[in-house]
Amino acid sequence: MAGNPERRAALVDAGIEVLAREGARGLTFRAVDAEAGVPVGTASNYFASRDDLLRQIDGRLHRRLAPDPEVLGDLMTAPRDRSLVAALMHDLMSRATGDRTGYLALLELRLEATRRPELRASYTESVRGDLEFGMRFHREAGLPGGDETVAVLYLAMLGLWVDHLTLPGVLDGALPGVSVPEGLVELIVGAVVPEG
Amino acid sequence: MAGNPERRAALVDAGIEVLAREGARGLTFRAVDAEAGVPVGTASNYFASRDDLLRQIDGRLHRRLAPDPEVLGDLMTAPRDRSLVAALMHDLMSRATGDRTGYLALLELRLEATRRPELRASYTESVRGDLEFGMRFHREAGLPGGDETVAVLYLAMLGLWVDHLTLPGVLDGALPGVSVPEGLVELIVGAVVPEG
Repeated sequence: MAGNPERRAALVDAGIEVLAREGARGLTFRAVDAEAGVPVGTASNYFASRDDLLRQIDGRLHRRLAPDPEVLGDLMTAPRDRSLVAALMHDLMSRATGDRTGYLALLELRLEATRRPELRASYTESVRGDLEFGMRFHREAGLPGGDETVAVLYLAMLGLWVDHLTLPGVLDGALPGVSVPEGLVELIVGAVVPEG
Repeated sequence: MAGNPERRAALVDAGIEVLAREGARGLTFRAVDAEAGVPVGTASNYFASRDDLLRQIDGRLHRRLAPDPEVLGDLMTAPRDRSLVAALMHDLMSRATGDRTGYLALLELRLEATRRPELRASYTESVRGDLEFGMRFHREAGLPGGDETVAVLYLAMLGLWVDHLTLPGVLDGALPGVSVPEGLVELIVGAVVPEG
């Protein structure tokens, strides 16, 4: 395996672009080489297999889409109430709209996971880890509601980013006076999180 | 355009299989012919273009995944309260798990819509139509909550079927004593729908 870490990161990012643009079936070593502008055969020196590339894409997206520690630090100085949960969810949605390619690649990974047991196992572990982190964070921060609250919030926010990134016109204008996605984030948090 | 309606329906169903199994990029006329077990060239006699096939897949899924009128009729004899909403959502989830291929194809259509403006327009109209139907139905049936309730319910249920069909292990066991997906349907409805 070739070991230049910057080139590896550039190849993984190229894989994310290809995944979002072409779909999982378009993700070949050759397409990654072309996207990264490197000689044919480069990607195959960096990844043991297509499954290895998919796993590294998951790891990279995980870091790329994580909350900014500075933004998170600033938010966490606020009172631990429902409006703080809303602020955290607004931050999540602005990351989703700010890195549309990354989030579309996450959705392609989910579909590819239905076809590849190895990816399904590793990707399940990674998403489950995020959910458990969210539950622990919510608890330790003293935010209102329990693990059930976080689970329902996770599902509604997943629905919102899937809907908004793939078919933004479905909810746009469906509720007069409710902006998309901001107003919907408020509606979700208002419904799901206890007043505290 | 060739006109045998049964053969057309069989070809569209074959397209749904290919879409779910291979992803959008695998959906070619040749793959549809092979899946349907018909001579090469048949699909191209039935569909004006790949966009035409995608639109017909949307229409067919719409009918194939619609609630059974008999089941719906039986449900609607119950009191118009939150537990009726839960029963309707359980019916939706059992349709999703009962026609996994159809729902995975819906998700592939969403991703393909990000790449094809014509599909995006027609598919947006069709999903928006379903959402508006749901809002009208909820209102006219006198179910508790307003259009906002239906919108949040739509998002959380979308999140649930996406999560459950692609990475069922994420939520399984995450909440002790809460079954997946049934217990989560109860949690969603309990959080989102007013007691009425």
